[in-house]
Amino acid sequence: MKKIIIIVCCFITLTGYSQQSSDLNLMPWPEHIRLTGQKFVIDKNFKVSINSNKGVALKSTTNFIRRITNKSGVFIEEGFSDVNNNEAQLLVNFNKISNLELSNDESYSLEVKEHQIIINAKTDVGASYALETLIQLLSFNDEYFYFPTLTIKDTPRFKWRGLLIDTARHFQPVEVLKRNLRAMAAVKMNVFHWHLTDDQGFRIETKKLPKLNELGSDGLFYTQEQIKEVVQYAADLGIRVLPEIDVPGHASSILAAYPEIGSKKQAYSIERFSGVFNPTLDPTNEQTYVFLDTLISEVAPLFKDVYFHIGGDENEGKHWDENQKIQGFKKLNNLKTNHDLQTYFNIRLEKILEKYGKKLMGWDEILTPEIPKSALIHSWRGVNEGLPKGGTLIKAAKAGYQTVLSTGFYIDRMESVVKHYQTEPIGNAVLTPEERARILGGEATMWAELATPTTIDSRIWPRTAAIAERLWSPKEVNDVGFMLKRLPAVSVGLEDLGLTHIKNRDLILRNIAKSESIQSLKLLADLSEPLKIYSRNKDGIEYKTFSPFMLFADACVADASEAAYFNYLVQNYLKNPTEECKSKIINQFKVWQLGFVDFSKLKMNPNLMSLQEQYKHVSKVAVYGVSFLNGDKKTLSKKELKQLLKELKKPCVDTELMIVDGLYSLFNIE
Amino acid sequence: MKKIIIIVCCFITLTGYSQQSSDLNLMPWPEHIRLTGQKFVIDKNFKVSINSNKGVALKSTTNFIRRITNKSGVFIEEGFSDVNNNEAQLLVNFNKISNLELSNDESYSLEVKEHQIIINAKTDVGASYALETLIQLLSFNDEYFYFPTLTIKDTPRFKWRGLLIDTARHFQPVEVLKRNLRAMAAVKMNVFHWHLTDDQGFRIETKKLPKLNELGSDGLFYTQEQIKEVVQYAADLGIRVLPEIDVPGHASSILAAYPEIGSKKQAYSIERFSGVFNPTLDPTNEQTYVFLDTLISEVAPLFKDVYFHIGGDENEGKHWDENQKIQGFKKLNNLKTNHDLQTYFNIRLEKILEKYGKKLMGWDEILTPEIPKSALIHSWRGVNEGLPKGGTLIKAAKAGYQTVLSTGFYIDRMESVVKHYQTEPIGNAVLTPEERARILGGEATMWAELATPTTIDSRIWPRTAAIAERLWSPKEVNDVGFMLKRLPAVSVGLEDLGLTHIKNRDLILRNIAKSESIQSLKLLADLSEPLKIYSRNKDGIEYKTFSPFMLFADACVADASEAAYFNYLVQNYLKNPTEECKSKIINQFKVWQLGFVDFSKLKMNPNLMSLQEQYKHVSKVAVYGVSFLNGDKKTLSKKELKQLLKELKKPCVDTELMIVDGLYSLFNIE
Repeated sequence: MKKIIIIVCCFITLTGYSQQSSDLNLMPWPEHIRLTGQKFVIDKNFKVSINSNKGVALKSTTNFIRRITNKSGVFIEEGFSDVNNNEAQLLVNFNKISNLELSNDESYSLEVKEHQIIINAKTDVGASYALETLIQLLSFNDEYFYFPTLTIKDTPRFKWRGLLIDTARHFQPVEVLKRNLRAMAAVKMNVFHWHLTDDQGFRIETKKLPKLNELGSDGLFYTQEQIKEVVQYAADLGIRVLPEIDVPGHASSILAAYPEIGSKKQAYSIERFSGVFNPTLDPTNEQTYVFLDTLISEVAPLFKDVYFHIGGDENEGKHWDENQKIQGFKKLNNLKTNHDLQTYFNIRLEKILEKYGKKLMGWDEILTPEIPKSALIHSWRGVNEGLPKGGTLIKAAKAGYQTVLSTGFYIDRMESVVKHYQTEPIGNAVLTPEERARILGGEATMWAELATPTTIDSRIWPRTAAIAERLWSPKEVNDVGFMLKRLPAVSVGLEDLGLTHIKNRDLILRNIAKSESIQSLKLLADLSEPLKIYSRNKDGIEYKTFSPFMLFADACVADASEAAYFNYLVQNYLKNPTEECKSKIINQFKVWQLGFVDFSKLKMNPNLMSLQEQYKHVSKVAVYGVSFLNGDKKTLSKKELKQLLKELKKPCVDTELMIVDGLYSLFNIE
Repeated sequence: MKKIIIIVCCFITLTGYSQQSSDLNLMPWPEHIRLTGQKFVIDKNFKVSINSNKGVALKSTTNFIRRITNKSGVFIEEGFSDVNNNEAQLLVNFNKISNLELSNDESYSLEVKEHQIIINAKTDVGASYALETLIQLLSFNDEYFYFPTLTIKDTPRFKWRGLLIDTARHFQPVEVLKRNLRAMAAVKMNVFHWHLTDDQGFRIETKKLPKLNELGSDGLFYTQEQIKEVVQYAADLGIRVLPEIDVPGHASSILAAYPEIGSKKQAYSIERFSGVFNPTLDPTNEQTYVFLDTLISEVAPLFKDVYFHIGGDENEGKHWDENQKIQGFKKLNNLKTNHDLQTYFNIRLEKILEKYGKKLMGWDEILTPEIPKSALIHSWRGVNEGLPKGGTLIKAAKAGYQTVLSTGFYIDRMESVVKHYQTEPIGNAVLTPEERARILGGEATMWAELATPTTIDSRIWPRTAAIAERLWSPKEVNDVGFMLKRLPAVSVGLEDLGLTHIKNRDLILRNIAKSESIQSLKLLADLSEPLKIYSRNKDGIEYKTFSPFMLFADACVADASEAAYFNYLVQNYLKNPTEECKSKIINQFKVWQLGFVDFSKLKMNPNLMSLQEQYKHVSKVAVYGVSFLNGDKKTLSKKELKQLLKELKKPCVDTELMIVDGLYSLFNIE
């Protein structure tokens, strides 16, 4: 933590936040906050009362007590919350149970006074958000834990703050979903986009179409009971669940079960690789719509939400072009392009959904003039540079469609949290109030080609907490340094919800080392990041569904902390070449050298061997770095150094060292 | 790991195992093993075939491939196992699906040749045990992963190898049970004793007696669907599930719902503390038996096993003595003691169980002349010194009862694995073959007054793996050093099953430090152990059910590794005072000093402050130790040293430092 704080102190001076409030590790940052300088001390007499035992409020306040107890270690006498007890230290008041619709009021106010805390909200969801804020406010000195006295008024900027979890590429058991739902609620996200079908698996139990489970799932699917359980669990956390059945493309697993509705006469099977594949439903076959009607009639009632996501993305129509009957159908119906044909399909599907009380949502390929205005457009394409100018979000809003942004929030690309945090959905786009109102918010997308139940949390968190802030907090809350300063504490704070994003990194390193002596591996992992933007799995054929995902790259994360610290030290030193700055860098170099010494003591196996050269290079450059900074006789010639830096730049077992830029600047090498 | 190997090298020379086989980290150690000196190399072409797709065999062989893939990092092409493909490298053959009764044959043979592996077993359970052995055989050099070629013939010494998990004192969600079931199967344990009710909670959903859930569970109970799911999950792993409903004592949660069947007219409520309490069912009230009949009629069908545990322990009968009607009943029926009255109750209950096809099992209080021979006696009392002479096991067997041992296997006492490993169930007792046959085996008992879902794994594992060996392996497999040498690798190996026994220790330390910088805390935790034999929770009133269990003591485990290493170094040095031995101890002292320096850099909170004095003392004694060993001017007078050692001996936040004995010997202080 200390390190991070050093990194960002420079930023903080730039921020508009008072030094006082900048000590707090709130995320998302509230709309209005005013500190009043006192402390509410948490002791064993702490009691909580709520004004209604309706809904889940009573359960969530009791859960709040348990979390504060475990986080503070204070033996709070009363393990349960009370109803209408004005003597309690924490009073939670709300007016009504939320309906979990887009119109739901999620705002709250929180007043912490020296001897009492009062929460007021319109709905139970707003009240539970206030409790999450209060948990993040937990502070301490060396004598006691406390909440700083303050007043907060808070309300979200966007009403749609989602996380997509792909359960098709790798099946994610219910407990994985539940712990991520808890974490979503902790950062005030309210839409769980459940990607349930894809080429690699069909994950919904269906009794009317049992072959989907027998032949399309490897036995890995959610029973209807489990789906209801997850939907209810999410609802209790104020989270809407948006199901997705991806059609007409991404359909290998469907066609493995029902090849007769495919666009090509061939045997189909569950796809084991990653990428975009040709198996596609035949939109000209009436049986396709019978199938979809049957499926939707059974699946739709499992979900409470009005929206139903039909995918609709990445259909290149190869099998349509190869099929004479389909080509004939296009001519007959004056459908010029495959895109027109897909629109025909979407409109048919929209009618089916409507029949079962659902509104259609789809990826932005569905955006065509013919598609009804009731459709919700999910923007994912366009230059992924943050501003949506290349995306379809603004275009859809101006065209009269409600829309949600995922461009810039593709967390499976393993890019830095900074990039996602700087993805401003609206930017400087000029919009009428109506158009602005159609931009509902955004969704982080966790595609799971390379993410298993063991690793998925560290691919989602903590970066998604910063995306949650982007979607909840005012546009002006955008100071990168201030976000980076808060993120580590937020990340550790989320662990009490069962997230494995920190602890499973060590698990993987122990699996590689076959021992608990992983300090040296951990250091290397904190200097390295997995290859980004899908370059880890070139052409989608390096990894199959059941390839090993307990490798070094799986223990690395998108923002390598030790590398960030080193690069910061270098920038700082170049700006301000004091002895102190210099010695800090020298210390890092020595830590790297010791790391390699410890590493070399491990009993080698092939997975450790694959890191040995890389680590040796790190040690070598560290030795040079010390001689360079101390002005001693250089241990490498310029030529050797350049060669070594080239080596360090090379990817190693699907990871890259993030210290290289810092080294180039420090040694002043182009 | 290295450290441990150093510790035990001395032992290994004493063992009867060949140096070769002693490199293997098998646990339980097989009955017969012969190495043949070659290697079966694991590569991408590795294929597995099984001779029948019946039962769970196909699933378990496929699961085996996935585990080998993740453990080795080898990209095995075929992610699924095959049926009757003699070309496969691993052939798994078994004769029949196990019936999961006591008579079940669990034996197997395993032959690893250079190019093929053959498993033969009578039942699918035997075959899956062979696969677990094979996973433990996974070996490596710096070029590849391999299995050493060998032949193993293996069969269990005892047919009852159980683990009790108390889900009443702290509720343990289904995923906690599932991951522990997987780990049980990995060390060939076959009975899950599910302690489902106690004063602190009634955990079974009942539709006929709904108040048990409404008033007796805090809403924390298993639905009948979940119970069936767990029973099936266990069956798929070859594990029988033994339910326990604890009566007539331990009944607070039952009486909170149905006070009318209590022995005393009073208001009852769920118990929040630990210990032995007075609420007891009234054995003289016919309604009690109506209640039990109703309950058993609904619960019994949820479980497949013929045995049903009724508890029957720790009823001190205080409320019986206070109740005139009950005293009258005793006179009338010539029941002299409360024990006689409880026997009357047990016999009535035994009839009810019989009616629903169940055999009665109970703690050894039920052992009375009147109790029918069909009852199974669970021995838990007697001096807990390993040999059962103080226990009831032998007594029961001689009296004609089948019996199971838990004396010596109380893992919640937080004692060393050595103590449990040395608990020999039969010892030198002289038994007839019939009497010996009645001793079915044993059970480790994980009582959960102080164990939550976050900490329970580290209280069960890895020690229970050593108990599993005691119950499976021949009596002669009893070399403590050899067990200690294998245990660390076994412990890390179990993590792939989802156990949190290693990773949640760091989780707790991060919660205490409020940061990821926990190295210094980890060192102190590895020098410390939680207070043993229930002294942590004196009189059961220091902790309530919902007290914090994310404290330093919860991050400590029963065998503090760094302390064991230090004490070993000291013994070694005193035997053999070389410079090398000395410098190793000095290194440890320096590590402790650095630990305190790092610790002091942490941002202090009350939980860290509670460790500060302790850590300062450790650092102080380390400074002295260096001066002592180097023969420099001592930093402490003898008087000061004695005082310091006294301080170090004192418990600190429910933990004790395990280095103190080593320090006394090293400094030669009485």
